[in-house]
Amino acid sequence: MTTNIGSMELAAICGMADALREHHPLVQCITNVVTVNFVANVLLAVGATPAMVDIPDEAGAFARVASGLLINLGTPHVEQRTAMLEAAAAAHANGTPWVLDPVAVGSLPVRTQLAHALLDYCPTIIRGNASEIIALAGAGQGGRGVDSNDDPAQAVDAARRLAVTTGGAVAVSGPTDIIVDAQQTLRMHNGHAYLTRITGGGCALGAVMAACAGLHPSPLLAAAGATALYTIAAEQAAVDVRGPGSFAVALLDRLSNIIPDEVARAIVLESS
Amino acid sequence: MTTNIGSMELAAICGMADALREHHPLVQCITNVVTVNFVANVLLAVGATPAMVDIPDEAGAFARVASGLLINLGTPHVEQRTAMLEAAAAAHANGTPWVLDPVAVGSLPVRTQLAHALLDYCPTIIRGNASEIIALAGAGQGGRGVDSNDDPAQAVDAARRLAVTTGGAVAVSGPTDIIVDAQQTLRMHNGHAYLTRITGGGCALGAVMAACAGLHPSPLLAAAGATALYTIAAEQAAVDVRGPGSFAVALLDRLSNIIPDEVARAIVLESS
Amino acid sequence: MTTNIGSMELAAICGMADALREHHPLVQCITNVVTVNFVANVLLAVGATPAMVDIPDEAGAFARVASGLLINLGTPHVEQRTAMLEAAAAAHANGTPWVLDPVAVGSLPVRTQLAHALLDYCPTIIRGNASEIIALAGAGQGGRGVDSNDDPAQAVDAARRLAVTTGGAVAVSGPTDIIVDAQQTLRMHNGHAYLTRITGGGCALGAVMAACAGLHPSPLLAAAGATALYTIAAEQAAVDVRGPGSFAVALLDRLSNIIPDEVARAIVLESS
Repeated sequence: MTTNIGSMELAAICGMADALREHHPLVQCITNVVTVNFVANVLLAVGATPAMVDIPDEAGAFARVASGLLINLGTPHVEQRTAMLEAAAAAHANGTPWVLDPVAVGSLPVRTQLAHALLDYCPTIIRGNASEIIALAGAGQGGRGVDSNDDPAQAVDAARRLAVTTGGAVAVSGPTDIIVDAQQTLRMHNGHAYLTRITGGGCALGAVMAACAGLHPSPLLAAAGATALYTIAAEQAAVDVRGPGSFAVALLDRLSNIIPDEVARAIVLESS
Repeated sequence: MTTNIGSMELAAICGMADALREHHPLVQCITNVVTVNFVANVLLAVGATPAMVDIPDEAGAFARVASGLLINLGTPHVEQRTAMLEAAAAAHANGTPWVLDPVAVGSLPVRTQLAHALLDYCPTIIRGNASEIIALAGAGQGGRGVDSNDDPAQAVDAARRLAVTTGGAVAVSGPTDIIVDAQQTLRMHNGHAYLTRITGGGCALGAVMAACAGLHPSPLLAAAGATALYTIAAEQAAVDVRGPGSFAVALLDRLSNIIPDEVARAIVLESS
Repeated sequence: MTTNIGSMELAAICGMADALREHHPLVQCITNVVTVNFVANVLLAVGATPAMVDIPDEAGAFARVASGLLINLGTPHVEQRTAMLEAAAAAHANGTPWVLDPVAVGSLPVRTQLAHALLDYCPTIIRGNASEIIALAGAGQGGRGVDSNDDPAQAVDAARRLAVTTGGAVAVSGPTDIIVDAQQTLRMHNGHAYLTRITGGGCALGAVMAACAGLHPSPLLAAAGATALYTIAAEQAAVDVRGPGSFAVALLDRLSNIIPDEVARAIVLESS
């Protein structure tokens, strides 16, 4: 069920499952140690090729040849911080699309400063929860940071400000996924609460966005295509599972099998 | 089946599953790269909120606001060592309960020295196998270290000495889980050998103890409540699995579904 | 089905499943953060005892007492690089068999230089894909590196040159697994494409080789025994799974249950 979205845009969103399997985009990930294994397995499941190249003196060169880059701030140790800045600079200079996942930005100082520095390299897509997006935008505007509450309307405003600054898209994950660029706002209503009961539910979505950003020139549609694919596979996976352990297994299985027709039938999306 | 335990204490132990789901304690983990994903998923499964904040200049501040803290010495790289000391000091100063898991202490020098330094911050609960507990107590007493054998009686003596020093509880994991504080000794006979056939079986128990320590003022009962919940879920999980892969999945499922009545029916505990 | 292999050699290869469960070899792993959890679980599943001792001032001492050592270059951060050199030197000096897995060597500079340095310590087994083996041999010969294509004949030549240099065995993973030492070439035709759809499919095979190298004096037969056990368990696992998530779970289950008779019935191996 969709509202106000063109058929070309909808086809691009729903067709992402096939595009990933056809092109096998090479996705560089500089990501946290907690969920790196799950992120790699999700990328493989959707047909992408993950490469966790995250050390200085390798990360930049690799970002020039990768199809897409994910930078996730979950556990940003010193070498990773250097590698992130190196890779983001290289991606920005060479036109490699890249995704910033500002985990826990706002409440923790080291990564908040780092995220601020990374914004200079204009991430193609920023993906976070409402608090993170509000904090990141607040920091950019002068420091409202963690005081912000998670009001959805405030999240949309914050996301829009960030999108105007970067020229890319910003995705706010939640029960409703909100994706904006400078002009457009998409609200997507798929997904399952189990995605919050496993670690890496958000991290892996950011990685799929990096894979899709290498395939489609519109950051908004790449983020929406990744979200549709991922959240609808989650709905499929949630059927017949017995808890979060079997959900994570089923999610990988479903991501590897889902087809565009299934996405098109299940998608619930409003554009404004 | 229980011996010599009061009904209030038993209710606290068996009720931990509900308490975790009601309060969603925020558990900071500074833990090894091998099992960090499993540890996070176990915490989510029992209803806690994991946060792997393990870098210097973030770890200390976070330890002041967390409900509980886990420090696990499995792969203690330099930055983590600094973060561990920072977090333990902050936890100790601010009354945040914290768990020390002294992985392989005794046989490896860097972490043995680190564990010794961490003892100054009086861990609320120490959880390890018999060799680790004996080595840690030996180091504290002047260096018997790895020469110690794993005699259960010796482990109880070592655990008691540590508990007297820290003022907290000490849990010795094994076929029988032994939990002591300065006065009391609990022997718990639940669990399954599959817990030794997957990596992280012990690490995750330490994390659940950190979650429970944020909910109950008695370190002994928090450790016992975590052990009962975890080992009885393991017994449930072991039914109908085909090997260690499906056991790990089933354990997460069971941890998310187990209820106090099931714990109360299955628990085998002697107090002395 | 086997060609040109002696009955003693075949018995050693097919019997590895029992030997692992009898001797529980202690396998030290210095490996990447992406797949370290899966590697540890695979080692436990086959009956080995994993120990991820990967920090300086511990890695060398541990390599002297371990049954086998795995060095995998997937995410070689600075401390790990120091620990790898320390452990390889200790293993070489003390006769501990060790496996080098040169992940992405050739295309990335830091690890390529590191791999070159590690070759001085004569790895007992080198395991990689065709590109990695060709790049590693090329580097040793003066720099053909990443220009090399993946021609199987070229991979055999490269593997042979490396084996002559190290005095050990070299395994080239692929649809056909090729294992050589200075004299002999084994071609093994078991396995399943699912091993390329999960992260760690190759890393874990390297770890099983390190476990087997501690049990049998022939590097060639240790590598072949590990490959047979692992790839045939993968064939068993692929039956009835629904995607890569359930495949990884089933692989761990099968590895813990597979017996020498099943290996002997399924093995397809040519020796020349």
